[in-house]
Amino acid sequence: MNEDHKDTTPIPHREGPGESLTIVKVGGAVVEDEAQLSQLLKDFSAIEGRKVLVHGGGRKATKVAEALGIESKMVNGRRITDAEMLRVVTMVYGGLVNKNLVAKLQANGINALGLTGADIDVIRSHKRPPVPVSPGYSGDPGFSGFSGTIDFGFVGDVERADGQMLSKLIEEGITPVMAPLTHDGQGNILNTNADTIASETAKALAPYYDVTLIFSFEKKGVLRHPDDDDSVIPTITHADYIKYKEDGTISGGMLPKIENALAAIDAGVSRVIITLATAIDGRHGTIIQ
Amino acid sequence: MNEDHKDTTPIPHREGPGESLTIVKVGGAVVEDEAQLSQLLKDFSAIEGRKVLVHGGGRKATKVAEALGIESKMVNGRRITDAEMLRVVTMVYGGLVNKNLVAKLQANGINALGLTGADIDVIRSHKRPPVPVSPGYSGDPGFSGFSGTIDFGFVGDVERADGQMLSKLIEEGITPVMAPLTHDGQGNILNTNADTIASETAKALAPYYDVTLIFSFEKKGVLRHPDDDDSVIPTITHADYIKYKEDGTISGGMLPKIENALAAIDAGVSRVIITLATAIDGRHGTIIQ
Repeated sequence: MNEDHKDTTPIPHREGPGESLTIVKVGGAVVEDEAQLSQLLKDFSAIEGRKVLVHGGGRKATKVAEALGIESKMVNGRRITDAEMLRVVTMVYGGLVNKNLVAKLQANGINALGLTGADIDVIRSHKRPPVPVSPGYSGDPGFSGFSGTIDFGFVGDVERADGQMLSKLIEEGITPVMAPLTHDGQGNILNTNADTIASETAKALAPYYDVTLIFSFEKKGVLRHPDDDDSVIPTITHADYIKYKEDGTISGGMLPKIENALAAIDAGVSRVIITLATAIDGRHGTIIQ
Repeated sequence: MNEDHKDTTPIPHREGPGESLTIVKVGGAVVEDEAQLSQLLKDFSAIEGRKVLVHGGGRKATKVAEALGIESKMVNGRRITDAEMLRVVTMVYGGLVNKNLVAKLQANGINALGLTGADIDVIRSHKRPPVPVSPGYSGDPGFSGFSGTIDFGFVGDVERADGQMLSKLIEEGITPVMAPLTHDGQGNILNTNADTIASETAKALAPYYDVTLIFSFEKKGVLRHPDDDDSVIPTITHADYIKYKEDGTISGGMLPKIENALAAIDAGVSRVIITLATAIDGRHGTIIQ
């Protein structure tokens, strides 16, 4: 959690120019597909004004780990990061994925700068302590029925993101490209979920800009009917969310996504958009505000 | 070559504050050894004033390539970078080595920022065309007697380094940590020799600072007698170099190193020091000026 934005603080005071800034989070699937990636970077480059790109890369990390003979262990979709896997994600997220995105954005005329949380100390985290799980835990089949604690290894829970330093770079015309890696201030890189990087960055920049945070994924938005791809709910407010949760319209994995988005809104982010990776122009998807 | 420093220009006009700035280049051997690395980073952190770290990482790249079943091909100590090897060096130099150095410097209280040439377009290069070699070429045994051209693959020859943007970051209290990777402005990362990164960066920063460029290696300096580790030549000027070259005191692989250093001096760098990796305080080694 960003220390500038404690829960007790309402929308923070805008010290900055109040210009609009768009943060786009792209997942691993898009980053893997050359044609999709090229289109996404074209669309991202076309977004007017200040912007930040946040990327994942989990599938690529899994492939590289495989090629190195290292097994990827997942619990409930979250990677267990042992020392060997930390080396892999540091290489893949911080090097392979990040630097190729930066080079490609440069070719589009965007002055990109690749960052992990360690660079200019932009996102500080601490290693996640082992997490208790209950009997009948519904994660990875290998763990079902398991009771006790799970140590996710070298995974960082965010303590603070430095919006001031980021905004200084952005005012120099720089577009930060953020990898899902943070550091603990003691010399250790930690693996951190890309959605978390995106929302913590959005919250940290909220005092300086009118922030739109776009999560791109494989659906057109939050769907009213899971089987109907065109049943996108255009807007969700806090009150809507409570209603949709109660009547079962929104359930499962979408719940934490929207709760995360609402927390960003509470912390001063102007709007969060959940949309298709091919529709990041801010005019498609579900707007959470 | 930096476009601000054509050969015809003598020492460039200093527009900046004229503060001192130290650039330290560390090789792969030091980066590999935890104890040596920790000491080097402590020594680097203790250097007063503005500074830049440039690192290699070739040995680590060779190891990771080996683990991935990719063969490292070398000619005369220079790596041939095919598409697969480019992926490896992007991972290892841009991710594994760079980000661990950045995190460790942050733990020392240094506000480090990892950069490849693609980041903020700081070093632009072009892909090296195939290089002609003559019969009896004395490189890799596999190539001896070979005649024709050698394609080094995705290797970048530097066109320009952006000293202005680097100096802006440095004036924000940032310490750039530079990986031996550049980009061509067309979306491609290219592999570039770390010594070249160091000297191009030094030349690009010469208009803004009083620049000391330190090349650390496995000897105490330039030796008068190759077998006597304590026969360090304290100072070499252009005139000394001509003399030492004629009388055979300096020969072999040291010749291009010193020629490279003298070129940096001609381009406005104040002094180049060749020294042991454990003696980067600017008071040891051979000073070329």
